Amino acid sequence: MKTKAAVVYETNKPIEIVELELDGPKAGEVLIRYTHGGLCHSDVHIAHGDLEARLPMVLGHEGAGIIEEVGEGVTRVKPGDHVVCSFIPNCGTCRWCSTGQQAICDMGATILEGYLPGERFPFTGPGPVQNYGAMCMLGTFSQYSTIHQNSCVKVDDDLPLDKAVLVGCGVPTGWGSAVNAADVSPGDTVIVAGVGGIGINAVQGARYAGAKNLIAIDPLQNKREKAMELGATHAVATAAEAGDLARSMTNGNGADKTIVTAGIVTEEIVTDAFDNTGKGGTVVLTGLNKLSTTNIQLPGSIMTLFKKTVKGSLFGDCNPTVDIPKILGLYQSGDLKLDEIITKYYTLEQVNEGYDDLLNGKNVRGVIVHEH
Amino acid sequence: MKTKAAVVYETNKPIEIVELELDGPKAGEVLIRYTHGGLCHSDVHIAHGDLEARLPMVLGHEGAGIIEEVGEGVTRVKPGDHVVCSFIPNCGTCRWCSTGQQAICDMGATILEGYLPGERFPFTGPGPVQNYGAMCMLGTFSQYSTIHQNSCVKVDDDLPLDKAVLVGCGVPTGWGSAVNAADVSPGDTVIVAGVGGIGINAVQGARYAGAKNLIAIDPLQNKREKAMELGATHAVATAAEAGDLARSMTNGNGADKTIVTAGIVTEEIVTDAFDNTGKGGTVVLTGLNKLSTTNIQLPGSIMTLFKKTVKGSLFGDCNPTVDIPKILGLYQSGDLKLDEIITKYYTLEQVNEGYDDLLNGKNVRGVIVHEH
Repeated sequence: MKTKAAVVYETNKPIEIVELELDGPKAGEVLIRYTHGGLCHSDVHIAHGDLEARLPMVLGHEGAGIIEEVGEGVTRVKPGDHVVCSFIPNCGTCRWCSTGQQAICDMGATILEGYLPGERFPFTGPGPVQNYGAMCMLGTFSQYSTIHQNSCVKVDDDLPLDKAVLVGCGVPTGWGSAVNAADVSPGDTVIVAGVGGIGINAVQGARYAGAKNLIAIDPLQNKREKAMELGATHAVATAAEAGDLARSMTNGNGADKTIVTAGIVTEEIVTDAFDNTGKGGTVVLTGLNKLSTTNIQLPGSIMTLFKKTVKGSLFGDCNPTVDIPKILGLYQSGDLKLDEIITKYYTLEQVNEGYDDLLNGKNVRGVIVHEH
Repeated sequence: MKTKAAVVYETNKPIEIVELELDGPKAGEVLIRYTHGGLCHSDVHIAHGDLEARLPMVLGHEGAGIIEEVGEGVTRVKPGDHVVCSFIPNCGTCRWCSTGQQAICDMGATILEGYLPGERFPFTGPGPVQNYGAMCMLGTFSQYSTIHQNSCVKVDDDLPLDKAVLVGCGVPTGWGSAVNAADVSPGDTVIVAGVGGIGINAVQGARYAGAKNLIAIDPLQNKREKAMELGATHAVATAAEAGDLARSMTNGNGADKTIVTAGIVTEEIVTDAFDNTGKGGTVVLTGLNKLSTTNIQLPGSIMTLFKKTVKGSLFGDCNPTVDIPKILGLYQSGDLKLDEIITKYYTLEQVNEGYDDLLNGKNVRGVIVHEH
């Protein structure tokens, strides 16, 4: 079948909207009609070459939609099911899935290659390389895709998919960075560094976990206002202000946990986060930078003498098969806000505009609405 | 009273043996007759200026001895008690002591200043600066010292103090780095980088905690042999060999936990440890370097994508009031070896020779036997 898709052919060039040929589902695979794709930062990392992906690649790793057709042996979903896609698949049987660490499932090793198991490329199109990969084995910036059932999490039919789509990556990554990775405890003093699609949900997670003082950092006024609206107790423009605040609230010790949720993790941001975190404290890293960059510089003796921890967290250390429904349940009960964090909807053709808005800081979250 | 003591007056000069005046115990303090002092690496960090301490300072932070006299209000010990000194005091009431984190007790903030609470200096002697500090508020390289009761842990009278002395710092720091900080679990693949006074006990801790593969790294043959004797399953000379071994044992993933126990923590050692640690793994740092050195460089994106953690651990995250007796109990039952790790005894006058032996790698552990 034919489908429209947003493709990166070359880094640092505009994303192109093209028509591709899509092969239907084989064993273990499903055909999904995407209703929505979320504009999350990692697609920009592909487009800019920070994440070195195999090209051409259909972008989009936050997706929601409806199952159209299933291949042989598919048990997780059936045609008609409403689905949120997990940006990392979970096989259910590898060492990590078997021990409550689905976020680092071995099946995720090829998400930047973009093919399905067996080096299979359902998308084909014009060009010297005719096999097109799909970002995170999903390619949600297309009307349709053939994906693996292990990427699918069935959700309630009455959930609005234009909201639920965010729970495929950004919401659990932020929420879990606070609730799981930072292990925010009632009474903690927490700094969230960067209020984007991850940070706003780290704020929601930290608030829900009982942070007493919850300091959001963002240079932009609209982001700070959003953070205050969704649970931050303080919102400041600079890390220096956040550090001063945190120390003033903790007898000089500093934050118990600092969660780095900036879209691009720079050396300066991490150094500030480390310095703002007190004795016995934890810095959680959620964002990315160039894969080849050794961009964190830390004083080893201070880490030891002050018992500080720096930890990377992928997907908020969430287990998508459990945590995607759980977070959607919190949305349904009103404990977690999704409507309030979506700032704009776009058509597929407006994908470049959507990412410009993201990079310019206009949007907390943008969502592509697919036409069929 | 008078006491002989080993003093650093100036960095990068030999340690001097001098006679000092010692003031007796005031409220909360005790007079201890040290029977033994352990030659642990941190004293060298003071002598070399890596740890910037107030000078002059009586060295020695591993000590064991007998209480001679107690000041007003002392409840933890009484004259005649056999005591192992904890290199970090524990007040029992600060935020950290109250939450099971005695290792970072606020009372430890001045251990490099070397005075007792109230900026009190029991040691006085010749020179432009007549108030002499005591390393870690102990100064165990002296025949006698006046220390705070919060530095004292009473131990069984029948324990040999020449062995028990090591449980004031090196043994719990190594043991706890594996058992507490790295949280070694049965079946884990563990690398211990550096087999000195800390590393040999990290080996013992990791073995006791059930490491399946326990790879010790040390360039020196005698150290590797000692590691194999006390529980390592493999001992290699280089980090590259350890990484190859760990990956060969884990389907290519690498070590579950790598514990950096080298006496001087360099950028290269940490980078190797990080690279040798697999997805979802933890690197524990126990050692020191110059306090001002930003000596750890890490790739932030890899930390996030592979969910890796780097954590500093002080005193092996131990709670000395519980863990010092517990570890001594393991020694008494034969589960943990102390006799086997002591390679040489010295007189106080031989302190420079003892540290030369340590730095040259001749010793795993050396102990000063005090004469009275």
